[in-house]
Amino acid sequence: MRQTDRRTHHLGREAIHTYWDHALPPALTVAPGDTVVFDTLDASYGRAARQVQEQPGDLDPALVSLIAAGSYTTPPNAGNGHPLTGPVAVAGAAPGDTLVVEILDIEPGLWGWTASPAGIGLLSDELIEPAGHIWDCRNGRSGLFAPGIRVPLAPFCGVMGVALAAPGRHPTFPPRPTGGNMDIPQLTAGATLYLPIQVKGALFSVGDVHGAQGDGEVSGTGIEMEGTATLRFGLQKGRAIRQPQFRTAPQVAMVPSPYFAATGHDHDLREAAREALRGILDYLEQEHHLPRSRAYLLASTCVDLRISQIVDAPNWTVSAFLPLSIFTGSAA
Amino acid sequence: MRQTDRRTHHLGREAIHTYWDHALPPALTVAPGDTVVFDTLDASYGRAARQVQEQPGDLDPALVSLIAAGSYTTPPNAGNGHPLTGPVAVAGAAPGDTLVVEILDIEPGLWGWTASPAGIGLLSDELIEPAGHIWDCRNGRSGLFAPGIRVPLAPFCGVMGVALAAPGRHPTFPPRPTGGNMDIPQLTAGATLYLPIQVKGALFSVGDVHGAQGDGEVSGTGIEMEGTATLRFGLQKGRAIRQPQFRTAPQVAMVPSPYFAATGHDHDLREAAREALRGILDYLEQEHHLPRSRAYLLASTCVDLRISQIVDAPNWTVSAFLPLSIFTGSAA
Repeated sequence: MRQTDRRTHHLGREAIHTYWDHALPPALTVAPGDTVVFDTLDASYGRAARQVQEQPGDLDPALVSLIAAGSYTTPPNAGNGHPLTGPVAVAGAAPGDTLVVEILDIEPGLWGWTASPAGIGLLSDELIEPAGHIWDCRNGRSGLFAPGIRVPLAPFCGVMGVALAAPGRHPTFPPRPTGGNMDIPQLTAGATLYLPIQVKGALFSVGDVHGAQGDGEVSGTGIEMEGTATLRFGLQKGRAIRQPQFRTAPQVAMVPSPYFAATGHDHDLREAAREALRGILDYLEQEHHLPRSRAYLLASTCVDLRISQIVDAPNWTVSAFLPLSIFTGSAA
Repeated sequence: MRQTDRRTHHLGREAIHTYWDHALPPALTVAPGDTVVFDTLDASYGRAARQVQEQPGDLDPALVSLIAAGSYTTPPNAGNGHPLTGPVAVAGAAPGDTLVVEILDIEPGLWGWTASPAGIGLLSDELIEPAGHIWDCRNGRSGLFAPGIRVPLAPFCGVMGVALAAPGRHPTFPPRPTGGNMDIPQLTAGATLYLPIQVKGALFSVGDVHGAQGDGEVSGTGIEMEGTATLRFGLQKGRAIRQPQFRTAPQVAMVPSPYFAATGHDHDLREAAREALRGILDYLEQEHHLPRSRAYLLASTCVDLRISQIVDAPNWTVSAFLPLSIFTGSAA
C-alpha cells in the first residue's frame, strides 16, 4: 500500500460501549495502515471532570461512594463496564492473525482522578476508608497531588483489546489473551502493541486513559481521565501469538530518579506484593506525613511493583519502587 | 564520630560460611561508619572460574550437573548453602535497630556463569534440558552471550543479610525479613540497604555477586561470579522496620533501551509470570534463533518481570521486558 493511501479517521464518544461482544456492529471499518483518532471517556463517564469544573477540590463524596461501590456504570451506559470507544474493524483481519497497534499519540485530559474503590485494591481490606483525589494536570506535564508532590504524566490507555471468539457479552474488567484492561503503563506514545485476533475484522476498542500509573495500580485506579488516543493499525497475516505483546518507545524506562524501595518475601507473590506496598505506605506516612489512605492513592499512580526473584523457594521477593523525584521540594 | 575515626577493614574468603546462625562468632567487629571490603565466592565455590581458566567455552557438563542437582555444596564448605563472607558484628547494634549498608563498590569477576538448575527455575518443569553458559566479562562492561548478543554488567550482591533471632542453622536459599538471598538487581553501587536487626551486633554477611540479573532471575541464576564488595555500615538506633528497604543510586533505572515485552494474564501471579516468560522465549527462538534452553539462560540475566496490574480481578497481569540493546548487531 502506498503512503498516500493511508487515511485518518475519527471516532467520537457516540461509539461508546461498555462490554466486549463480537456481535456489536463495527463503528468504523479501516484498512491496514490507517490511523484512527479516538475520543475516550474515563471510568466515571466524565462525571469527575464535570464535577471538578464546577467545584475544584477534593472529589465529590457522592462520586467517591459511587466508585467505592465498585460500579463503573451510570446511565445511559448501562452494562457495568469501562466506557470503550469502538469497535473498529480492520479489513482483512482474520482469526490467527496478529493486530498491530502503533500508539502515535495520547493526549491527556486537563483533570484526572484517583480513588480507592472498596474490594478492588491490593490493600483495600486494610484501608477501609475510601478516599479520592482530583488531579490538576493543566500544565500538561504532571499532576498535582499536594504542595511539593507532583507525579509526572506518562499517559496511556488502560484498555486496548479485540473482541473474543466466545459469543455473548463479556465484562471489561479482567484482561484476557485478547488484551483489554491490561493497565500496562509502558504503552505510552511510541509503543507498538500486538494483539492476537480471534474474530473476523479483529474488532478493536480502546478506553480508560490514565495520565500516570505505577506498575501494579495498587489502589485499583491510576490518574483516570478522558483523553484522545491516536492509533495506527497494521496486520500480520498468519502470525499467531498466544498473548498480547508489545514494543516500548525507544527511551521508555522507569522515571529517571532515585527510588525508595520496600521489599516483601513470601511464598505467595500477592502477599509479597502486599508486604512491599505496606513498606511504601509506612514510609509515606512517617517521612512525608501523608495519611495512609492518601499515601495509598499516591502509590497507585507512581509506585512500581517488580518481581525481584521468583526462584528462591519457598519465598519469592517483590520490591515496590517509589520515585523520589515526585517530591519537588516546592509548593508549586 | 569524626570522619578520621572511620576505618576500612578487609575480610577475605577465610571467613566463608554456608548458613545463617547467630551462634557463629563474628569474623570482624566494626564501628558504625566503618567500611569493609569483602572478597566473595560464587555459588560454585570458584569452580566455574577455575574451570574456564583451564578450558574456556561452554560450562563443564559435570559442573552443570552439579548445579542442576540443586546443590551449591562442595567440600570443604559443607552445609548446602551459598558461600557467604562474614559475619561482621557492628558495635552497638541491638534488636529493634536498623542496619544501614551503603554499597560503595562492587567489583565483578572476569568470568561468570549462568545455569538452569532442575527444579528451581520458573519454567524448569518445561525445560528439562539443563544448560549452562560461561560469560566472558573481561572488558568490565558487558558479558558475551553469543556473537552479537551482550548483556551489560550491573553487578550487585545476591545475598546481603543479618542473622536471625531464631537459634540454629538456617539455610541461605530463601530470603527472609532479615534479608539474605533477595536477588534484587537494583542493589548496585550507589544504593543503600536497610536491614532490620534481630540480634546483638547484627551479624551481617554477604555473597553471591551477580554481574547482571533480570528482575525475577527466571532460571534461578544470574551471571554468577566471584567479586569484591565494598560496604559502609551505619546504624539507626531505635528505628525498627518490618522488612528490608533500600534507596537506589540516583540514576538507577531499567537499561536505557527499547524493550520487547510479552504479557501473561492469570488469577495466579506466578502463572501470569510463566506465561509472560513463555512469550519472551518464543520471541528469542523465532526472531533470534536461540535454542529454547539457551533463551532461558539469557532471559534470566536481563529480562525484567513487572506486575503491571494486581487489581483487575480475576486476572492479574505480569509483563516481561527484554532490553533490545543486548542485540549489538556485531559479533564483537
